[in-house]
Amino acid sequence: MRREEQDQNIIFGRHPVLDALNAGQEIDRVILQQGTRGEFEKEIRHACRRSDVLLQVAPKERLDRLVRGNHQGVVAYAALIQYQPLDDVLASVFERGETPLLLMLDSITDVRNLGAIARSAECSGVHALILPAKGSAQINAEAIKTSAGALHNLPVCRVNSLVSTMQRLQDSGVKALAGDLQAEHLLFETDLTGPLLLIAGSEGEGVSQALLSRINERFIIPQAGTTNSFNVSVATGIMLYEVMRQRRG
Amino acid sequence: MRREEQDQNIIFGRHPVLDALNAGQEIDRVILQQGTRGEFEKEIRHACRRSDVLLQVAPKERLDRLVRGNHQGVVAYAALIQYQPLDDVLASVFERGETPLLLMLDSITDVRNLGAIARSAECSGVHALILPAKGSAQINAEAIKTSAGALHNLPVCRVNSLVSTMQRLQDSGVKALAGDLQAEHLLFETDLTGPLLLIAGSEGEGVSQALLSRINERFIIPQAGTTNSFNVSVATGIMLYEVMRQRRG
Repeated sequence: MRREEQDQNIIFGRHPVLDALNAGQEIDRVILQQGTRGEFEKEIRHACRRSDVLLQVAPKERLDRLVRGNHQGVVAYAALIQYQPLDDVLASVFERGETPLLLMLDSITDVRNLGAIARSAECSGVHALILPAKGSAQINAEAIKTSAGALHNLPVCRVNSLVSTMQRLQDSGVKALAGDLQAEHLLFETDLTGPLLLIAGSEGEGVSQALLSRINERFIIPQAGTTNSFNVSVATGIMLYEVMRQRRG
Repeated sequence: MRREEQDQNIIFGRHPVLDALNAGQEIDRVILQQGTRGEFEKEIRHACRRSDVLLQVAPKERLDRLVRGNHQGVVAYAALIQYQPLDDVLASVFERGETPLLLMLDSITDVRNLGAIARSAECSGVHALILPAKGSAQINAEAIKTSAGALHNLPVCRVNSLVSTMQRLQDSGVKALAGDLQAEHLLFETDLTGPLLLIAGSEGEGVSQALLSRINERFIIPQAGTTNSFNVSVATGIMLYEVMRQRRG
């Protein structure tokens, strides 16, 4: 968390943060000072739970670094974009008679990768980007800049559990696919023409086992050379290109 | 040019810079202080010309920012990688009976894009990256890091003129291709199975007219949405993937 982000989208102080949550303002997450007890702690936990907002606990020093004023032990990040409910996005896709193309980001923690992937997604006609409430890079000013504005044009859905969201999509006929260096089929041997959920994994470790063990199919992007693999934003661009190729070809 | 690069690969002072050039050390470029005249100016110009090293003239203040010691009006950047002659690379490709796949970078000025493209190139079996001596991002520590080391494994060739290098390759049967938003054919409708020179253009303006007017074919990467286009490193990754797909399919 860098100092220069301080003033962009931070709300601090007990009343301002509670008011923002209670008024339904879009909040990315709330940071509560370690050791906070009593009525206020109950109230803030309740408000976060009700609004599906991530609550983190951190030492006072961390809050001091974020805010120059008197934070009273609580800081909130206002969201820079308007998140959308996945159900609403899907309803409008089906209404238009289109074949769903959804992109789930599993633990992408680098804001530039997040932005670059959003840019490619918007270029490729992705209907929604699905992010976890916890463990994703923040959609901050740098992510939005790297996305060339795509994060303002592309529906972004924030969900509590990637696994249960994926399973719900599978139940309604969407095929879940992910790249995996152990896969036996190449990307272009995989049918990408039906309703699709593509999963992009974290830079270090790829897609998590909890998701991998439940997906419908795995594929490998062909490659040569000795470098381990494509960068995640390039790999995602390649997957999305292959979808467009198959759907237009 | 940022201050923290100062000590990594800078040579300064009249004797050290001339000695490095005369000893055949790989130099990226030399910066000469504005207004330098006399015997030394002739010597340094001659040495740079003989070694195909770019010579730039800059005000004293710029040199002062680069070096803390007494630079005597001249600074050189030692190359962090070993450049290779394109002819040697081609000879070894033909010797191995492979179909040439070359990637030319036209005015890629962002070091991170350069690094990301090198990483994709190495993953895709590109035989050489071709960069212009003038007007390219520097291969500095950040570019090498972004490339995940690929810049140390992939042959990199530095040429004085991209246009004449392209024409020479065309004369020996290599097809030159570039992406262009005005093109009529889609990438996957373009035959990429023969000897190939792919050209990636600058972030802002695409491939320069001097090259575009002489290439063999243009293509467009399919896209949807309202954002203008893919990021150059993603677009290059997609081109290279399509080459692999066609050559393996």
